[in-house]
Amino acid sequence: MVGAGTDHTKTAYSGGPAIILVRPQLAVNIGMCARAMANFGLSDLRLVAPREGWPRTGAYRKGAYAAAAGAVHLLESAKLYDSVRAAIEDLSFVYASTARGRGQMKPVHTPAQALTVTAARHAAGEKHGVLFGPERTGLDNDDVALADAILTFPVNPAYASLNLAQAVLLTGYEWFRAAHGDVIPYDVEERSPPATREMSMAFFDFLESELDKRGFFRPETKKPVMARNLRNMFHRMGLTEQDVRTLWGMVVRLVEGPRRDPKKPERRNKLSDTPLQDDLSDQ
Amino acid sequence: MVGAGTDHTKTAYSGGPAIILVRPQLAVNIGMCARAMANFGLSDLRLVAPREGWPRTGAYRKGAYAAAAGAVHLLESAKLYDSVRAAIEDLSFVYASTARGRGQMKPVHTPAQALTVTAARHAAGEKHGVLFGPERTGLDNDDVALADAILTFPVNPAYASLNLAQAVLLTGYEWFRAAHGDVIPYDVEERSPPATREMSMAFFDFLESELDKRGFFRPETKKPVMARNLRNMFHRMGLTEQDVRTLWGMVVRLVEGPRRDPKKPERRNKLSDTPLQDDLSDQ
Repeated sequence: MVGAGTDHTKTAYSGGPAIILVRPQLAVNIGMCARAMANFGLSDLRLVAPREGWPRTGAYRKGAYAAAAGAVHLLESAKLYDSVRAAIEDLSFVYASTARGRGQMKPVHTPAQALTVTAARHAAGEKHGVLFGPERTGLDNDDVALADAILTFPVNPAYASLNLAQAVLLTGYEWFRAAHGDVIPYDVEERSPPATREMSMAFFDFLESELDKRGFFRPETKKPVMARNLRNMFHRMGLTEQDVRTLWGMVVRLVEGPRRDPKKPERRNKLSDTPLQDDLSDQ
Repeated sequence: MVGAGTDHTKTAYSGGPAIILVRPQLAVNIGMCARAMANFGLSDLRLVAPREGWPRTGAYRKGAYAAAAGAVHLLESAKLYDSVRAAIEDLSFVYASTARGRGQMKPVHTPAQALTVTAARHAAGEKHGVLFGPERTGLDNDDVALADAILTFPVNPAYASLNLAQAVLLTGYEWFRAAHGDVIPYDVEERSPPATREMSMAFFDFLESELDKRGFFRPETKKPVMARNLRNMFHRMGLTEQDVRTLWGMVVRLVEGPRRDPKKPERRNKLSDTPLQDDLSDQ
């Protein structure tokens, strides 16, 4: 999987719910969370009492910054707090991510459910946040008690362990889908326009007459069903105009055999000025 | 984020589309992909010409196996191929995951779209697969040409780089949601049953009469709207029977002041045999 990395010429999403890492243990995980946030347009990273501090210098800084790949701007702007309570003061709704039930009377939501609500509330001007606990132990019950609801991931119950950055990644993914749509991040190549029925049927007629001349349809009584099956196969291709020109050229070549004189002007089909022999190189 | 790790007492999902790592460069990434697959009940891991081979021994093995956490069974059962073509021979539909358009005339789907189709086709007995390219370069155009469709992730266009294991994670996540439902992996704790209207209204009456005695509702003409607002606040809590008992006990204590004789049998409310003073410790 390769990516474009940081590309400042493209739409840069930011905002979204605060991602609050509570007592994270490893700098490299903070960096990987920043990277996952950048992938999905989240920009509000908050750190509560990181175990090794947050010096932003030395080897510690190096581990986090290397793991963040191009998302160092999120590390630079990360806010540091000494308590969960201080980290969530400006938020109107807080999720606590947990991998298990915690015996607390709170609603439990999946990311798809939770981030759909969060995206709608953000559009209305609210600010939400998600708490993620330390790598080894998760959030403690006092952290969970500060939240409005629990966020839990739909995973294989036999293997429910998600690491910190993966949990942030799935949260970001559902935020992005809810806030910006389930859309691919680039323009799909301009396709040749779909073939009109006139064009595809002219090709079918041509193909069938060439096959008929060569005795393909045997017995004769089966011809209608054989022709129908052939047409159905080609229809399933969702033919474009370019596809029809390519197929037409292919059949011509199969029928006529090797070209005799490449200097001679190319035979053109009746539907286009494009020389048939150029077709395949366009694909 | 903490997880249960491998828990053999719980439902263990397996199957799903083949995850095909094409010329993966680093053993640690193969291990992380195995872990992500286990999280979402995928079990068919295929390796095409791993750069460092697949010795399953020595330091190389150690890196992959450490990263796989509890998912070593997927590494043990991984199948090794020398070409993409050999790796996909038994599949009926193949996605190529790419982060950019590739100038190939293929449908482009997001994971939510693609895995919904794959889950439906798997339920009908088909077998699909997803190709993932080498970490640095991604799939080459000849690999992509072997696929039926392109799989692309909805990401922030300004920061589109997903690493290999993250791409596998999101694929697994959408597979799980489509095949097994967007459901949390544990039973939500038994909640106290919701309070009946009779029970909650009895509490409101009690609360309002105590407030009335103390001159809370001023001016008197505002009493109906003030009472209505109070009731609406409590209704928003989605009160359970236990909640009503707790609130009732709280108001009693506020009204009566400190308990005088803890040895005396506790005052019981009229809706339950539960001593009011036990309520808070049940929460």
